[in-house]
Amino acid sequence: MRGTVLYGPGGVCFEEREDPRIVHPTDAVIRTVVTCVCGSDLWAYRGTDPVAQPTPMGHEYVGIVEEVGAEVTKVKPGQFVIGSFATSDNTCPNCLAGYQSSCVHREFMSTCQAEYVRIPNAHGTLVATDDLPAEEVLPSLVTLSDVMGTGWYAAKAAEVKPGSTAVVVGDGAVGLCGVIAAKELGAERIIAMSRHESRQKLAVEFGATDIVTERGEEGIARIKDLTNGVGADSVLECVGTAQSMRQALHATRPGGNVGFVGVPHDVAVDGQELFFSHVGLRGGPAPVRGYLPDLIDRVLTGRINPGKVFDLTLPLDQVAEGYKAMDERRAIKTLLIP
Amino acid sequence: MRGTVLYGPGGVCFEEREDPRIVHPTDAVIRTVVTCVCGSDLWAYRGTDPVAQPTPMGHEYVGIVEEVGAEVTKVKPGQFVIGSFATSDNTCPNCLAGYQSSCVHREFMSTCQAEYVRIPNAHGTLVATDDLPAEEVLPSLVTLSDVMGTGWYAAKAAEVKPGSTAVVVGDGAVGLCGVIAAKELGAERIIAMSRHESRQKLAVEFGATDIVTERGEEGIARIKDLTNGVGADSVLECVGTAQSMRQALHATRPGGNVGFVGVPHDVAVDGQELFFSHVGLRGGPAPVRGYLPDLIDRVLTGRINPGKVFDLTLPLDQVAEGYKAMDERRAIKTLLIP
Repeated sequence: MRGTVLYGPGGVCFEEREDPRIVHPTDAVIRTVVTCVCGSDLWAYRGTDPVAQPTPMGHEYVGIVEEVGAEVTKVKPGQFVIGSFATSDNTCPNCLAGYQSSCVHREFMSTCQAEYVRIPNAHGTLVATDDLPAEEVLPSLVTLSDVMGTGWYAAKAAEVKPGSTAVVVGDGAVGLCGVIAAKELGAERIIAMSRHESRQKLAVEFGATDIVTERGEEGIARIKDLTNGVGADSVLECVGTAQSMRQALHATRPGGNVGFVGVPHDVAVDGQELFFSHVGLRGGPAPVRGYLPDLIDRVLTGRINPGKVFDLTLPLDQVAEGYKAMDERRAIKTLLIP
Repeated sequence: MRGTVLYGPGGVCFEEREDPRIVHPTDAVIRTVVTCVCGSDLWAYRGTDPVAQPTPMGHEYVGIVEEVGAEVTKVKPGQFVIGSFATSDNTCPNCLAGYQSSCVHREFMSTCQAEYVRIPNAHGTLVATDDLPAEEVLPSLVTLSDVMGTGWYAAKAAEVKPGSTAVVVGDGAVGLCGVIAAKELGAERIIAMSRHESRQKLAVEFGATDIVTERGEEGIARIKDLTNGVGADSVLECVGTAQSMRQALHATRPGGNVGFVGVPHDVAVDGQELFFSHVGLRGGPAPVRGYLPDLIDRVLTGRINPGKVFDLTLPLDQVAEGYKAMDERRAIKTLLIP
């Protein structure tokens, strides 16, 4: 089969690779139906997270089960499945506490931009749909394996509640999905921080009530202006830089919450600053697995349409162009079809 | 009148000072009935937080109202009152959100180890009791102005819930009050980290079910042993050093919460470490004012007795010895009687 391998900054190849097979009795192998490129893939693509060796890429997927190991009884060959970018047995104490992405048997998916994929912990990780979904919902369904689930977690970690005010820092696919999540969780006012017209439009379509184009201190001041002078109840930090974290913390009211889902790069939070802010802070890889049944239902009933974050669709063998377009910000997110 | 002034490391004087008087119409002046020395006073006493000039000390107090400004109508001369170490108008957005210690008009109390004290924002800050309390409850009542309220906030910020497991890092007065709070909020298991026999005893008396004497990595491993291998639901960080914060974060399960109330000194939280921990973090000066009615009730009905943290009682004019005894860890906390 063929799959995507990153050789170094900018070096994306789609090449012949060994067919995945069942290694552990808890594995499954799926045939990929759609996959995509994640904003977080760009950390490696740009060399910010250097790769030490040729590295298979991709952690977002939906597919058809080809084969399952002896201990996988919840899904069977022929079923259409969606799973999380972080695998989980769904039985350990962390899974039971709703933090499947801290499963004691967790393995992060990393080979999904390929024709076939081995899924570890398949029993706990994969959720099958009743029927084969219609083609038009595939983009939305594949977002549930990461970006939409991550936006959802950002809103949950930021404790978005009905009637509250939420700010979304970051206008990438995760931030845009965060707008959807904030709306679904009942936020009355949703302020998206964005400078890009196409993203602003999508944010408004997803439920944003206000757009703030300013950044840094000016952005913080603007949020304060819009929130009674004290800051927002909930802030979704969907970037992962020191600047975006600072912006998030200072845009939150005392007693409010920041949910941070951009993997932090060179971020250190000053203890005394956090202390006097009275802001609650929770982040991490989203426990997508726990949200899947609910989010699949919201997609299949047409309540949410996160697939709109894809503004570029390519055949999987043109994956390199998919990375390039996102790197150059010509695309928000690239959908890949094998 | 006479009051306490710190001149530099170790330099505590009790000396003649100007009588406090009403400056703003929102002020009151009280005659101090009891006051005390706080663990946080030792940061300045030890020179960790250097004082630039002779500095009045003390932020814990109960007293009798002597005089009120024109806008203070909720308390009147002759009443026995308790207030927070952080004053608040109790009407601003942050007060209404339950974060009175982030009141937009907040002033931190700092002159309370004295015979008389001016209380800014008296209308919102002071709570009067119906009657003059009996002498034996005065130690417990004065803890409500800071340490007991702070322990309570640590437990609330750490989201202690009925049936949960809580860990308390720090065996000072705040940590010990944190044990009381965790018990009152329904924690089933309360693990106190302490190496000092007298403090261990008091922790157990207050409701601790386990004592862990190990610190650092060994302490973290011990907590994991006691908590299903994953860590505690709630950890109360009551010290404020980089070591204690690290200990707290690593002793918490994914999805659990750290409430931190020790003013952080040289603490930086690594963004990526916090991210992958899945731990929620909230700290700050405790919004004591909001807790006062409830906590006063718990003290006056004999449900809690946080006054036991005082193991040294001195006349106010011997305040210097009160600092010394705490600095040398001969005393947990010193009560001062004018």
